Amino acid sequence: MVPANELTASQARKAMVRGDLTAETLLQSCLDRISARDDVVKAWCHLAAETTLVVAKELDRGGRIGEKGSLAGLPVGVKDIIDTVDMPTTYGSAVYPDHRPSMDAACVALVRAAGGIALGKTVSTEFAYFQPGYTTNPHNPGHTPGGSSSGSAAAVADFMVPFAFGTQTGGSVIRPAAFCGVVGYKASYGALPLYGVKALSHDLDTLGWFCREVADIHLMRAALVGAPSIVPDAELNSAQAPKIGLCRTYEWDQADEDCQAAVLAAAKNLEAAGAEVVDVTLPPSFADLVESQKRVMAQNAARDLAFEYHQHRDRMSRHIIALIEEGQSVDFAIYQQDVAATEAGRGALHAIFDQVDVLLCPSAPGEAPKGLDGTGDPIFNRLWTLLGNPCVNLPGHIGGNGLPVGVQAVGAMGQDEALLAHCRWMEQRII
Amino acid sequence: MVPANELTASQARKAMVRGDLTAETLLQSCLDRISARDDVVKAWCHLAAETTLVVAKELDRGGRIGEKGSLAGLPVGVKDIIDTVDMPTTYGSAVYPDHRPSMDAACVALVRAAGGIALGKTVSTEFAYFQPGYTTNPHNPGHTPGGSSSGSAAAVADFMVPFAFGTQTGGSVIRPAAFCGVVGYKASYGALPLYGVKALSHDLDTLGWFCREVADIHLMRAALVGAPSIVPDAELNSAQAPKIGLCRTYEWDQADEDCQAAVLAAAKNLEAAGAEVVDVTLPPSFADLVESQKRVMAQNAARDLAFEYHQHRDRMSRHIIALIEEGQSVDFAIYQQDVAATEAGRGALHAIFDQVDVLLCPSAPGEAPKGLDGTGDPIFNRLWTLLGNPCVNLPGHIGGNGLPVGVQAVGAMGQDEALLAHCRWMEQRII
Repeated sequence: MVPANELTASQARKAMVRGDLTAETLLQSCLDRISARDDVVKAWCHLAAETTLVVAKELDRGGRIGEKGSLAGLPVGVKDIIDTVDMPTTYGSAVYPDHRPSMDAACVALVRAAGGIALGKTVSTEFAYFQPGYTTNPHNPGHTPGGSSSGSAAAVADFMVPFAFGTQTGGSVIRPAAFCGVVGYKASYGALPLYGVKALSHDLDTLGWFCREVADIHLMRAALVGAPSIVPDAELNSAQAPKIGLCRTYEWDQADEDCQAAVLAAAKNLEAAGAEVVDVTLPPSFADLVESQKRVMAQNAARDLAFEYHQHRDRMSRHIIALIEEGQSVDFAIYQQDVAATEAGRGALHAIFDQVDVLLCPSAPGEAPKGLDGTGDPIFNRLWTLLGNPCVNLPGHIGGNGLPVGVQAVGAMGQDEALLAHCRWMEQRII
Repeated sequence: MVPANELTASQARKAMVRGDLTAETLLQSCLDRISARDDVVKAWCHLAAETTLVVAKELDRGGRIGEKGSLAGLPVGVKDIIDTVDMPTTYGSAVYPDHRPSMDAACVALVRAAGGIALGKTVSTEFAYFQPGYTTNPHNPGHTPGGSSSGSAAAVADFMVPFAFGTQTGGSVIRPAAFCGVVGYKASYGALPLYGVKALSHDLDTLGWFCREVADIHLMRAALVGAPSIVPDAELNSAQAPKIGLCRTYEWDQADEDCQAAVLAAAKNLEAAGAEVVDVTLPPSFADLVESQKRVMAQNAARDLAFEYHQHRDRMSRHIIALIEEGQSVDFAIYQQDVAATEAGRGALHAIFDQVDVLLCPSAPGEAPKGLDGTGDPIFNRLWTLLGNPCVNLPGHIGGNGLPVGVQAVGAMGQDEALLAHCRWMEQRII
């Protein structure tokens, strides 16, 4: 039998609803795994072991756990740029070593209201930008787990927790999901509440999370969108084979052999399984959008982190200072052009998604790079974050160094439910 | 000579740059006015008199104040749902009587970085919804100043401060601006940083502010959008007479005689001054968007205020609890239809703004209602907040009770600079 900590969230929920698993057993198995492994993986910067065991025991006491919320008894890791009232929140920054928020972020409050257990805080890069934390890749501690949601991706990949929140401004969910070999989801821009999540770039910041199967995305999403009931499995499973657009993007030559092979193999396997696969070439204007994303991110960061820059610059890394100062120097008219180009790009994508259901792209340039002094390149994520499309990393492929290589499924803006249904169909068929 | 506290922000800045006014004199004149009047108006819930005088004196010491930032020496009131590191922030709620944030909201940090002086916190309704604070209308203390940005509108109207921040989710900037007889501005949705502003509805919440002339909007906006230099006066003044769409909206019969007369008089006066004025009828589908706005607001509030609802319900008003519980019961599919209808409405407005430069509409149903147990009806604001258009309240008309009646200028989404140029042309010609 699979150890409780290795169950997907959906499997664990079913087992708890059946009465075959208690919340305490699940939580204890996660805590045991963390004890055994976190000296190496270093995914967590704070763990609420004792208080959460009390919560789990309470959930197990009397009444059916299935009636105690859609996430009842499921442990959740919380990226440390997300506020928690009962745990420190450092934003990965030396500016806030002892910070304790006065309230939970909306997403944490919704998880708790649905019976979920906020198990601890996971390591984030500084303000969710490039300065790495100390987390290692669970598959090889000499390699980065990716970032900025480093600890969350690693914790889920290492079977320490079935769910963990991340955020994406450049490629901070999909890239670490690919490097760590787990399912990662970035929602459509704007649809999920960001209150209590430290802002890096308000035009781009988007909530997401890591888990172990596509059905789990749905389970969490139901709590966060305010849909009181979970979409039944049957509905998710009824998806027809989607029409897939193989989309190399203008950055294809920056994907290494492992990455290109994984995407092309996925396309071939999905076609063999019955999906129609067509090549999709993005409009030429999309070639400039990666640079637009970089400028928008910098321009926003100069505003969103104005307090820290003007009051606490001495405790910020050269990476984040450089980003902010680059942002301060962006000509406002150029930024407005970037915003307009983004709008135009969204319009162009509407036409593309009239032709295909989902775009298949690289998640990251290849396997997780060696070394812990960087978090890899978000080159394959910047475009979709700028345009706001929902994205899922589907794991399963393995590269030349034996590390995971992900492929990315991109859906139409605001059509997250449809994307998840397509991904549910794809996840078992891409290998 | 006009007392310093009665100058517009733009006038005060020019006087300080010329050397005819010091930051200390301006601040002291604001503080004197507050001392004289706030027992009646009750606009402020916290005042940082001593610390800001130190800041003002420092600004006056050595060097030219014009080189110390685009807002150097200008006092700013901060609505109490906006975080300030050096002042309490209660969100107008009994849940947070002693709350002191660990950082400034991005907008406050940007004001300070531009040399502006955060003078104090202004009264907000509870969580920027309907439960009123204790502020009175400066023109008649028996009448509401409007809400939710009650204290900010009243403070600017009563010459206590040249600038004050507000936020709008329903009609929380434009309505109190109309009731208090000041210029009010709600930005395009999404363009200004909201980090550190308590969320009520993430699909709707928008930053805005109150001031005394349209040029002042620009002055503040330059600091908040990250445009390093202020648009020169000449550029603002070069605006041609705009093509104006007189837009009664589907709520016209809910405007009283004062309101209808003010809007029609404004249209007539603008036409007489050389503007082309045409009638604009909104598409029939717009008749339903007010109800959509109400549902979206409730649906979001149930998520954005989940922490308070689930942890501190006993300290929340029946108004906000009713909103949250209404939101919890909104069918997610209906909410998604509302979001789609909003997108469709934005598309329809693009076509309308191809024909006209600005829409002229009511700001509020009439004069400020009598009594302090409510804040008036946002019926003429809900549509534009949902659709995300930039809006300006232009004061000047007076109703039957001698209280101000505003008219509302609405611009194309994202075209705030163009709207402000048109409003600059309109502000002297609507009476």
